[in-house]
Amino acid sequence: MSKLQVSKRGRDVIASPIRKFLPYVQATEKKGIKVIKINVGDPDLVPPQDFFKVIRAYAGKTLPYTPSPGIPAHTAAWQTYFKQFGVDLPMSGIIPAVGCAEAILLAMQAVCDPGEELLVFEPLYASYKSFAVMTGIKLVPVLLPFEKNFALPTAAEIEKKITKKTKAVVVINPDNPTGKLWTEKELNTVVAIAKKHNLFIISDETYREIRFDGKKPTSLLANKAAREYVIVCDSASKRFTMPGARTGVVASFNTDVMHTILKFAQARLSTPTLEQLGLIPVLNNSKPYVTKLVKEYHKRRDVIAEGLAKIPGVVFKPAQGAIYQSLQIPVKESEDFVKFMISEFSYKGKTVMVTPMQDFYITPGRGHSEIRVAYVLDSKILKEAMEILREGLKAYLAK
Amino acid sequence: MSKLQVSKRGRDVIASPIRKFLPYVQATEKKGIKVIKINVGDPDLVPPQDFFKVIRAYAGKTLPYTPSPGIPAHTAAWQTYFKQFGVDLPMSGIIPAVGCAEAILLAMQAVCDPGEELLVFEPLYASYKSFAVMTGIKLVPVLLPFEKNFALPTAAEIEKKITKKTKAVVVINPDNPTGKLWTEKELNTVVAIAKKHNLFIISDETYREIRFDGKKPTSLLANKAAREYVIVCDSASKRFTMPGARTGVVASFNTDVMHTILKFAQARLSTPTLEQLGLIPVLNNSKPYVTKLVKEYHKRRDVIAEGLAKIPGVVFKPAQGAIYQSLQIPVKESEDFVKFMISEFSYKGKTVMVTPMQDFYITPGRGHSEIRVAYVLDSKILKEAMEILREGLKAYLAK
Repeated sequence: MSKLQVSKRGRDVIASPIRKFLPYVQATEKKGIKVIKINVGDPDLVPPQDFFKVIRAYAGKTLPYTPSPGIPAHTAAWQTYFKQFGVDLPMSGIIPAVGCAEAILLAMQAVCDPGEELLVFEPLYASYKSFAVMTGIKLVPVLLPFEKNFALPTAAEIEKKITKKTKAVVVINPDNPTGKLWTEKELNTVVAIAKKHNLFIISDETYREIRFDGKKPTSLLANKAAREYVIVCDSASKRFTMPGARTGVVASFNTDVMHTILKFAQARLSTPTLEQLGLIPVLNNSKPYVTKLVKEYHKRRDVIAEGLAKIPGVVFKPAQGAIYQSLQIPVKESEDFVKFMISEFSYKGKTVMVTPMQDFYITPGRGHSEIRVAYVLDSKILKEAMEILREGLKAYLAK
Repeated sequence: MSKLQVSKRGRDVIASPIRKFLPYVQATEKKGIKVIKINVGDPDLVPPQDFFKVIRAYAGKTLPYTPSPGIPAHTAAWQTYFKQFGVDLPMSGIIPAVGCAEAILLAMQAVCDPGEELLVFEPLYASYKSFAVMTGIKLVPVLLPFEKNFALPTAAEIEKKITKKTKAVVVINPDNPTGKLWTEKELNTVVAIAKKHNLFIISDETYREIRFDGKKPTSLLANKAAREYVIVCDSASKRFTMPGARTGVVASFNTDVMHTILKFAQARLSTPTLEQLGLIPVLNNSKPYVTKLVKEYHKRRDVIAEGLAKIPGVVFKPAQGAIYQSLQIPVKESEDFVKFMISEFSYKGKTVMVTPMQDFYITPGRGHSEIRVAYVLDSKILKEAMEILREGLKAYLAK
């Protein structure tokens, strides 16, 4: 007789890497040292006030379920939002989700059965790894090499990883954790591969507008050649600075996909009512807020780049998008360095917490000299953080 | 080369049965006929006003993610709430979820791998069927016979369905869709089986307090003998009449289970911030609201029972709990009857929409003469609805 035991997927899924650092951070903070946290994508910016206005004014007597395809005005607001990128989705091509996280889970289950494969590029936003374990899907990684600023390998290189079990490919653009912006040519390579091998493209566009140096925001849904293949997973969390609202969306022109995702969504009924309502005016008039937001992140990107340029041994190219800067540091084990920073080191009563990159890789052994910085704080603090990082690295290497 | 095609789980999952009736309802409403909807569990009651007060008063500048184990005061409020049922959970034994729906999904994935089996009792809340398809888990049904008022079969009967792949058993108490209340003896039978065969018990207690005829609310977590085995899935949706808040919870004394569910929860980061905050005062002072609510549902249950008693050929025992009454009607195909009611029939300009029960069964052929009534409307309307049902059934049988 078997033991009472949790599932294999439950045992296999990894704990949030941030969690293991928590006790160190807490101990350090107890000593009175300030820990500047630029490890997670939880920004300090103020969300559009229309969101709160609508929620405060909610006059409904009851708080009912919404339809699974969303409150019509909410779904229509996403429709309006997407139009500015040349994407003219029907209402049935849009289903609200609980953050981009649920959108990804729904999309993955819609295209892959347990045991099937999903092509991904590493380094990869770590939640995909957990979602894959939970849903029984195998992630097959294609390396985007740090040395080549995360450039896509040739189609032939990518195709080597495709098997009979491959059902889809994931593109995150702009990318977390690398800060990479996909070029038109790279996107076309992926589209061509998808069409040739009949693969869906899960296009995670959470950071869509957050592109620097004048780059225009786009959506893979605007690529007419790829229409049937693309499933966009998206979220209000980053572009409107409201991760706690957990308002995401799945969008596709593929009617089979949307019908499937609707059936999944019906089983869990609906997403929260108030946040759907609050997001309507925000989506209907996104540009003013987003324009300011991108300017702010651009400034922060520059501050980070300037600070990093002054640290001996650090290798990086300034991020092209999203809210993350990835970099190489002259250490063997960045996790050990991070631990050092949050438990042994301080500079003028402060220290910095960044993210070691190894957990963003699937292939063991990779990313051990890389870290990710999230520029989720004010430029002044970020400038200081880069100085602390410099001093910390110096101290660590002198050990 | 394979075709671009959604996953098998995507094809296999069934659409919400309500959806197929929607076009009929819309056409009927267009004709000016009022459709009294007592088919879904979306009640008319007003939720506790403290919930809205807290949300309206939200003064945070940002809207950040919350910790995956919940805002501490929110998790502590669940802890306080559970204490009144003799359940003294540690904070780590509680994780907020997006409605009971997500709680069930998390619990199922924590105990079963793809291909493994979950013992359930049919008729069964239909979302379990979809969740099983999505997660690759096989549901193995044990019949609770309508004729015996859904009484549990003997342990020996149940054990016949247990295989090497069985990992857990689901108990919904009070039960949707039957309105059944589990007896102490029945619960003990399931606990004994779980302990003998090393099965987890997923205890869906969404309707916990909604018990009639003076029956006291309990939780299976209060059963000390079953401590390690029980995973409670719960929600604020029904007891506080706020389904649109999507605030649920998973609770267990089993540390392996909670550690696993925390890892799953971390991957999708957190549940919405505002609703977690709003629920705090409601959970901390649940009794006054819930007492009134149960009284109201009790009254409605009686109104339904009185109305049904006047319909020739209808067989039922008054529901003992939850917000549903299941009944047999003298027809071969209740789905056809429901269609008749919402497309061909009206009485004094009104008609009634109820739920045919067959979709609550897993075994084909079952439930075709059964319907479910949700008493989610005012007694006066319910009384009228029962009259319309009587006239409708008469007209249907006369066809």
